[in-house]
Amino acid sequence: MKIALAQINPTVGDLNGNVDRILRYARRAHRQGADLVVFPELSVTGYPPQDLLEHPAFVEAVQEALDRIAAAVPQDLGVIVGAPVPNDDTVGNRLYNAALLLENGRRHAEARKSLLPTYDVFDEHRYFEANEAPSVIEWCGLRIGLHICEDMWNAHQQAQPRTYERDPLGELAAQDPDVFINISASPFSIGKHDDRNALIEQICADHRRPFLLCNQVGANTEIIFDGDSRIHHADGTQTACAASFEEDLLFWDTDEAASTCTVRRDDTADLHDALVLGIRDYYEKTDIFTKALVGLSGGIDSAVTCALAAEALGPERVLGVTMPSEISSEGSVSDSEALADNLGIEFAKIPIKPAIDAFGDMLAPAFEGTEPGVAEENLQSRARGVTLMALSNKFGHLLLSTGNKSELAVGYVTLYGDTNGGVAVLSDVLKTRVYELARHVNARAGRAVIPQNTIDKPPSAELREDQKDTDSLPPYEVLDAILMRYIEQKKEAPRIVAETGYDPSHVRDVLEQVDQNEYKRRQTPPGLRVTRKAFGVGRRMPIVGRWHRPAAEPVTTDEPVTTER
Amino acid sequence: MKIALAQINPTVGDLNGNVDRILRYARRAHRQGADLVVFPELSVTGYPPQDLLEHPAFVEAVQEALDRIAAAVPQDLGVIVGAPVPNDDTVGNRLYNAALLLENGRRHAEARKSLLPTYDVFDEHRYFEANEAPSVIEWCGLRIGLHICEDMWNAHQQAQPRTYERDPLGELAAQDPDVFINISASPFSIGKHDDRNALIEQICADHRRPFLLCNQVGANTEIIFDGDSRIHHADGTQTACAASFEEDLLFWDTDEAASTCTVRRDDTADLHDALVLGIRDYYEKTDIFTKALVGLSGGIDSAVTCALAAEALGPERVLGVTMPSEISSEGSVSDSEALADNLGIEFAKIPIKPAIDAFGDMLAPAFEGTEPGVAEENLQSRARGVTLMALSNKFGHLLLSTGNKSELAVGYVTLYGDTNGGVAVLSDVLKTRVYELARHVNARAGRAVIPQNTIDKPPSAELREDQKDTDSLPPYEVLDAILMRYIEQKKEAPRIVAETGYDPSHVRDVLEQVDQNEYKRRQTPPGLRVTRKAFGVGRRMPIVGRWHRPAAEPVTTDEPVTTER
Repeated sequence: MKIALAQINPTVGDLNGNVDRILRYARRAHRQGADLVVFPELSVTGYPPQDLLEHPAFVEAVQEALDRIAAAVPQDLGVIVGAPVPNDDTVGNRLYNAALLLENGRRHAEARKSLLPTYDVFDEHRYFEANEAPSVIEWCGLRIGLHICEDMWNAHQQAQPRTYERDPLGELAAQDPDVFINISASPFSIGKHDDRNALIEQICADHRRPFLLCNQVGANTEIIFDGDSRIHHADGTQTACAASFEEDLLFWDTDEAASTCTVRRDDTADLHDALVLGIRDYYEKTDIFTKALVGLSGGIDSAVTCALAAEALGPERVLGVTMPSEISSEGSVSDSEALADNLGIEFAKIPIKPAIDAFGDMLAPAFEGTEPGVAEENLQSRARGVTLMALSNKFGHLLLSTGNKSELAVGYVTLYGDTNGGVAVLSDVLKTRVYELARHVNARAGRAVIPQNTIDKPPSAELREDQKDTDSLPPYEVLDAILMRYIEQKKEAPRIVAETGYDPSHVRDVLEQVDQNEYKRRQTPPGLRVTRKAFGVGRRMPIVGRWHRPAAEPVTTDEPVTTER
Repeated sequence: MKIALAQINPTVGDLNGNVDRILRYARRAHRQGADLVVFPELSVTGYPPQDLLEHPAFVEAVQEALDRIAAAVPQDLGVIVGAPVPNDDTVGNRLYNAALLLENGRRHAEARKSLLPTYDVFDEHRYFEANEAPSVIEWCGLRIGLHICEDMWNAHQQAQPRTYERDPLGELAAQDPDVFINISASPFSIGKHDDRNALIEQICADHRRPFLLCNQVGANTEIIFDGDSRIHHADGTQTACAASFEEDLLFWDTDEAASTCTVRRDDTADLHDALVLGIRDYYEKTDIFTKALVGLSGGIDSAVTCALAAEALGPERVLGVTMPSEISSEGSVSDSEALADNLGIEFAKIPIKPAIDAFGDMLAPAFEGTEPGVAEENLQSRARGVTLMALSNKFGHLLLSTGNKSELAVGYVTLYGDTNGGVAVLSDVLKTRVYELARHVNARAGRAVIPQNTIDKPPSAELREDQKDTDSLPPYEVLDAILMRYIEQKKEAPRIVAETGYDPSHVRDVLEQVDQNEYKRRQTPPGLRVTRKAFGVGRRMPIVGRWHRPAAEPVTTDEPVTTER
C-alpha cells in the first residue's frame, strides 16, 4: 500500500479554498500511485479556527465541506482529513476534534482527539470534548493507529509531573496497529524540530511501529506551522522528511524498503524562514493589501523587518519610508536609503517637522511650565505612526510593525506610535537575535544588504538628542538573558540572579517593567510567534492589579543551573 | 451558629492587600458575633489571576498568604477563603481552585472545584485540575456542602445539551449536608441577577437545604463582579441580600428565624452602576493616575463616558477636552462645554487645525492626485488621539476610550485615533443602550446633566462636512437588533432575517463588517464587560482568513423566534 502525507497550508475559515486545496493534493497523490492520502489536523478549517467553532452555521458548513470532499476524491482513494465534528451526545462540549477517513463518497471511519491542549496558545477545552477510548481503524487490511497531534505528546512528558493521565498511543498500541498515523497542527518554535525527533524516537522505541506524522504548514495570524512532516521506520529511523515552511507531499510504500534521511536545521535560518512565511501568509491570506509598508529609522529592527518583507513579498511589493525629525542622525536617512537601494524597494522620505511643530503649538498652553520629557518623545513616534497609517489608509498598504521582543517586554515603545501596524514581525525576537538575523540576511545574500553601519551603531530610539537605548535599559545581552529566563522559562528574580550573577535590584527592575507594560502589549498588533512563549494570545497576564514580588536576593537551588545562549 | 458572608473586592495579584482586606472583614464579622466567615472564590488572589498562576513563585506566595491569614484570624473563628493550591499528584494540571476553611492557625478542611469553566472569559482548564469527588466538610458540628462557583451551575443546564456530565451539588446532597455554601467569582452581565434567582430556587426545590452564596464584587480589568451575595432558606426564600456593586457583609444565624427580602433590579441602573465601578476600579487599583481624561465631541458617547467618570471618580478628577476641527459643528464645542459645566469638571479646548494642516503638507506629495477619503478622515481622529495621549503622558492622566459596541462591531472607529485609551468604557454597550444610559444619568441627577441637544442630534463622527452615521450604517435600532443576535446570541444571517424581517443582503453586510474588523478590535483597549458576550478576552476570533458565509436567505425554523428589546 502506498500512503501519501500532504503537508498543506490551509487558511482559517476558508472552507471552499481548503476543500479545493485538499482535492488538488488528493488527485496529485492519486496520480502518483497513492492508495491513501493524509492531511493535517483541522485541515478543512485551518488551525486555529477559534470561536468560529461556536457558530453552528460554521460547523454545519464544515460538515458539508466534508461531504464535498468525500464525493469528489478519486474512486478507491482513501483520504484522511482533520475537521471538527458534532458531539451528538446530550452532554459535554458540542464538538470533537476529529480525523476522518473518507472514501467513495462516505465517511469510512473517524478518530477523535483524546488529549486537548489548553495552555499557551491552545484553547481546545473551550471547544472540544475529549475522546475517552481511541480505537485502531481498519482500512483495506491495514490497521491504523490514527490519532491527533497532542495525543502523541504525553510520552514526551514522562518526566514528572505529566499534564495528562492518559497515554493514547499506549492505548492504541495495545490494539496492535500496523502503523501509527498522527495528523497535527503543531506550531513552530525554535528548537521544536529536535523535540519532535526525540519524541518520535522514543515512541518508536516503546512501540516498534512505523510512525507517520502529517503536520500543517503556513501561518495563521500569530501562529506559524513549519510542517516538518515525516515518516519513521519501526526502529525510529527517519525515511522521509518534508520540506520546512512550505507545502510538500511525502510517500511511503509499505511494501518497499526506503533509504534513511535526516534533516539538519539551523535556529537562525529557521527563524528567518518562519518570519518570512509569517509575513507572506498574513499578507496573502488577508488578500486586501497592495503593498507592505515599513517605517525605516536606519536602525536594525526596521532594516531586518524590511529585508524579511522584501524576501516574503518581493521587493516590488515593499515601500520603505524614512521620517526624519530635527533630532534624527544623518544615518537615519542615509542608512535607510542604502537599505532600500540594496533591497530594490520603493523608498520615500517624509520629514515630520511640520507635525512636531503643530503639536508643539497646540499643546503649548497646556504644557506651559513643564520640562520636555516622555510626552514630547512620544509625539515624534506618534507623528510617524500617523503618517504611516495615512499612507496605509490611502493606498491599502499593510503596515509592518518593527518592535522587537526586548523593547516590547520592558515597554520601550510608544503605544499608537512605533507599535502601529497590522502584524508585528519581530515581537517574539529578542534584540540579540535580531542582530543574528541581520547577519544571516547578509550572509544569505552574499553582500551587505543591511548596511554595516546599521549593524554597528549603538541602538537608539532617536527621540531626544544623543539618546542611546542604554540610557534607559541594561545592555541587550544582559536584558535578553533576564527576559528569556522570565518570559520563556517562567523563572523568578532569585533564580535569575543565581543563574546570571546580575545585580538583584537590576533583575527585579526588569521583571517589574515587564509586568507594568502589559497594558501596552494588550494593544499592540498580533505578532509572529517563534518561541515557546510569545507575547499575545499565548500569554495572558492581568493589566489591573499587580503582584508585588519579593526582593530578588539570590537563592541557592538544587535544580541544575542552565546556561542559556 | 452565626455565619457571615464577606462580599469583598480583592485586587488581582495584590496578595498583601487582599490578606489585609480579608483579615479586616474577618475581625469585623467576629466582633459582630460570627463563628464562621466566608469569602469569595480566589479571594486571596483576586479573579482572574490569569497566567500569574503559571509562575511557581506566585503560587508559593499565595500559600504563605494563606498561612498568614490562618495565623492572624481571631481564635476559634472559622474563615473560608478561596485560593489556588498545588496539586501534589504527579499527573495533571498543577493547581486546584480551592475553598479553604482556616481556623486557629491551620487549614481545617479544603474543598476543590469540580467544574472548570472554559468558555467566554473563563480559562480554568488552562490552570486547574478538576476535583473528582466532592465531600461535605464538617466544622463545629455543621455539615457544609462547600463548593465553588461553576459547581452550582450544572443544575441550571438541565435543558439539553448540558456542558457537564457531573452535578457536584447532587453529589454533595447525597452526603446529607446541613447547608450549601457556594463561593463565587461570578461576573456581572445584564440579567445575571435573575439567572441566579432562578437557579437557586431550583436548587432549593431539588435539595431542600439552605443556600449561601458569597460572590466577589469589583472590577478587574474587563470583568466586573456585581456581588449579589445572598442567603436562601431551604424552601428557596431569600432572607438576606447583599448590596450590589459594593462590598458588604451578610449574616445568617442558623438558630434564628429570618424575614424574607427581595431585590428588584433595573437593567439600566445595573448597567450604570457596573460601568461606574469598572471605571473606578481600573483607576484606583492601577493607582498611578492623576486624573481621568475624556475627549469630548459633543456627541452622546463621550458625554455618557464623561458623566460616568465624574460619578466614579468625582468631578475634580476628570478633565474633558474638546478638539474642534474646521469641520466640527458648533455644538461640538458648545455641547461639550455645557456638559463640563453641568458635571463641574475641568475643561480645555485644543483646536486641531495646526496638526491637520501639517499632516496635509507632509503628505501632499504622496497624496497628489488622490481624492480625499477615509485617510483624511482618520487623520483628524488620529490628531485628536495624539493630542489626548500627549496630555496623558505629560500629566499622568488615564485616557478613557469612548467608542460604543455598535461602532466597534462594524469598525466605524479609527484605530490609533478615537480608540486610544487605557480602558474602553462603552465597548460592550450598544448605541441604543447608550441613549438609555444618558436618560438614566439625567433622571438620576434630576436635571439635564447631559445636554438635551447631545441626546437629540443625529449621530455623526464629524470627520467630513455634513456627515451622518446613517451615511455609512443602518439606523442604530436596526444595526443593534442585528448585532445583538449575531454577537451575543451567535445567530447566523438566515435566522436573523427570519426574526427581524430585515433585507437579507443588509444583514449579511453587517455580519461581514463585524468579521472584517476583528483586526481593529484586537488592538483596542480592554473594555468593560456588561453582556454575556463582549469583545475582548471572551471573544476570540481569527484575524487572518475568513469564513465566506452563504447568502442570507431567510430560513423557516422550528425554533421559537424570540423578540429582543
